[in-house]
Order: sequence, then structure tokens, then C-alpha cells
Amino acid sequence: MAEVVHMIDSEVFLAFSTYATIVVLKMMLMSFMTSYFRMTKKAFSNPEDTNLSAKTSEDRKKLVRVDPDVERVRRCHLNDLENIVPFVVIGLLYALTGPDLSMALLHFRVFVGLPELWPLLWGCSQLFLWLTG
Amino acid sequence: MAEVVHMIDSEVFLAFSTYATIVVLKMMLMSFMTSYFRMTKKAFSNPEDTNLSAKTSEDRKKLVRVDPDVERVRRCHLNDLENIVPFVVIGLLYALTGPDLSMALLHFRVFVGLPELWPLLWGCSQLFLWLTG
Amino acid sequence: MAEVVHMIDSEVFLAFSTYATIVVLKMMLMSFMTSYFRMTKKAFSNPEDTNLSAKTSEDRKKLVRVDPDVERVRRCHLNDLENIVPFVVIGLLYALTGPDLSMALLHFRVFVGLPELWPLLWGCSQLFLWLTG
Repeated sequence: MAEVVHMIDSEVFLAFSTYATIVVLKMMLMSFMTSYFRMTKKAFSNPEDTNLSAKTSEDRKKLVRVDPDVERVRRCHLNDLENIVPFVVIGLLYALTGPDLSMALLHFRVFVGLPELWPLLWGCSQLFLWLTG
Repeated sequence: MAEVVHMIDSEVFLAFSTYATIVVLKMMLMSFMTSYFRMTKKAFSNPEDTNLSAKTSEDRKKLVRVDPDVERVRRCHLNDLENIVPFVVIGLLYALTGPDLSMALLHFRVFVGLPELWPLLWGCSQLFLWLTG
Repeated sequence: MAEVVHMIDSEVFLAFSTYATIVVLKMMLMSFMTSYFRMTKKAFSNPEDTNLSAKTSEDRKKLVRVDPDVERVRRCHLNDLENIVPFVVIGLLYALTGPDLSMALLHFRVFVGLPELWPLLWGCSQLFLWLTG
């Protein structure tokens, strides 16, 4: 019994909290990016959102459209959501099993760092493909 | 150690549970609203869902379509999901840090109340725009 | 106070962890299914994903398209997400209230088993419709 309490209070749980907060904040940033792209690209999904960007009714209707860049940000957001829910649920249960701190840190860092590593790996694979023909 | 246990048992955690349940139930309602709009607007996304609404094969194919109102409800559902995941994750971690009860209640209520306040604020801004030009 | 600690350590929480992990793993499988369908159906959403599937620039542009089977898997994934978030949040809070183990198991199993029961029930309803006219 005392062990479980110790686990919640432990550095593993603290590390989990830190990394969970980082990924959630990163995900919330996507909301603002969606707004930003919708504003700059002038591609809205609700007719009432177009009031500030166009004056006449005709112009407003044209702004209710699908923009590839906006859709890309929305896919990123959904993708984040699909990856964060498993991370938080399994990470929480994993933290409660009382793992070794270094192992737990490794797991959390791999998960949080992978999206930043991914473009690097992708770039390397592209370079390899280009070099080999 | 005893402090953490106290936090889980505290009124802050109770308040978090209440508000988390409210927002989750509100989100689950969107599933039923999607079904309702799909039924009344007769706009389905799977061919096998159209069996009850049309008899002939020709009519069924016409029902596999995209309806703006159904898409609006689906966007609301996705939007709820995108906001509830951060609320639950950060709220849970926040509740475990043992904040002051009144501050925690303020934060939870602002988050849960904001969607209800939003149309009000939006209406005011529209009125302002209409008055000023 | 001791009771809450007992609850986290209890078999109910263990059962919750098991079923939560099952549904989350099942959801993560949908990511791989989406990749699989995108590969086999050759329907991508980002232009840079088509590099391996087509050589010329003309062919690549044709692969950035919407495929009904891919969309179906994506809807399944989103649907899973929409159902798993309430299950995890409400299930966690429910497990912390210290319910009877048999009742908790019943609730968890009904939720996890329903998707497998659903096609059966659907098949029965179709048979009934076919028999009655």
C-alpha cells in the first residue's frame, strides 16, 4: 500500500507529468496554428466566421472553402490527439507500476523526442534514396 | 507522502471529477446529435447505414453524401475532443499539485463555463460591429 | 484517506488498467491499418508521401486522393478516440470511488466487448428485417 503512494509521489510520476504537459501544450498549439492558417489563407468552414474577412455576401460564400494547408494542420492536430491519448493513458499506468527512473525517462523522452527526430530520419532516407538513384 | 494521498482525497480532486464528468458527458451527447442529424438530414457515410432509410439500391447510393449540418456537428465533436483531452490531463496533474480549492474551482468553472459564455461574447461582438458600422 | 490508497491498489484498479490498455492498443492498431490501406490503395493525403509509390511527378499528383476504404478506417479511428476518452476518464474516476469488483468488471467488459458484439446484433437485426419483409 505504502509502495503505491510512494510511486505517485516519485520522480517517475514527476517526469511523466512534465512530459505529458509538454505534449499536451504542443497539441494545444495546433489549435492556434489552425486559426492562424484559416485567417491568413482565408479558408473557413463556418459561414459566420467569414464576417470579418469579407464585406459582401458573395465574397463570404467564397471563403467557406477547403485549403490544403489548413487541412494539413488539421491532420497534424488529429494525429497529435491520436498519439497523445495512448501516451497519457499507458504512461500513467506505466508510472504507477513503479518502473526504474532511468528506463521511464528513456521511454518518455523517446516518445516526446520522436516527432522532432522524425524529419531528420526522413531527410536521411531521402538523401539515401537520392544517392542510390 | 501523506500529502499526496490527502490531495487525491481532497475536495479539489472531487471538484475535478465533477467537472471532468460534465464535459465528458457533454462530449458524448455529440455522438447522439451526429446520429440524429444523420437520420433527419438523411446523410450517411457508410453504404450499409442507408438500409432503413431507402428501399432501392439507387436511392441508397444517393444517401451516402456530405451534409453541411452533419459536418458542423462532427467538427463540434472533434473540437470538444481536442479541448477535453488537455483539460483532463492538465486538470488531473493540477489537482495533484494540491492547489487552493477556490482557485481550482475558478479554473475548472472558467473552462467548463466558457463554451456557454462564448455565444454571449460572440453576440456582443457582433452587436458592437453592427453598431459601429 | 487509507481507503483511497486501497482503491488505487485494488483489483478494480488493476482491472481498469487491463481493459484501458486493451482498448488503447486496439486504437493504436488503427494507425497501422490506416498506413496499410493508404499503401495498398495508393491514396495519400500529403504529396511527399507519394515518393516511394510513383516515379514521375504526374503520377504522384494522382496519388494525392481520397479513397472510401481509407476514409472508413479513419472514421473508425476517430470513433475509437471519441469512445476511449470517455471510457478512460469516467472509468478512472469510477475505479477511484471503490465499486464492487464484480460490478466494475461487468461495466468494463460490457464496454470492451460491445464492439465485438455489435456486428452480431447488427446481423440479427438484418436477418429480422429480411424475414419480416
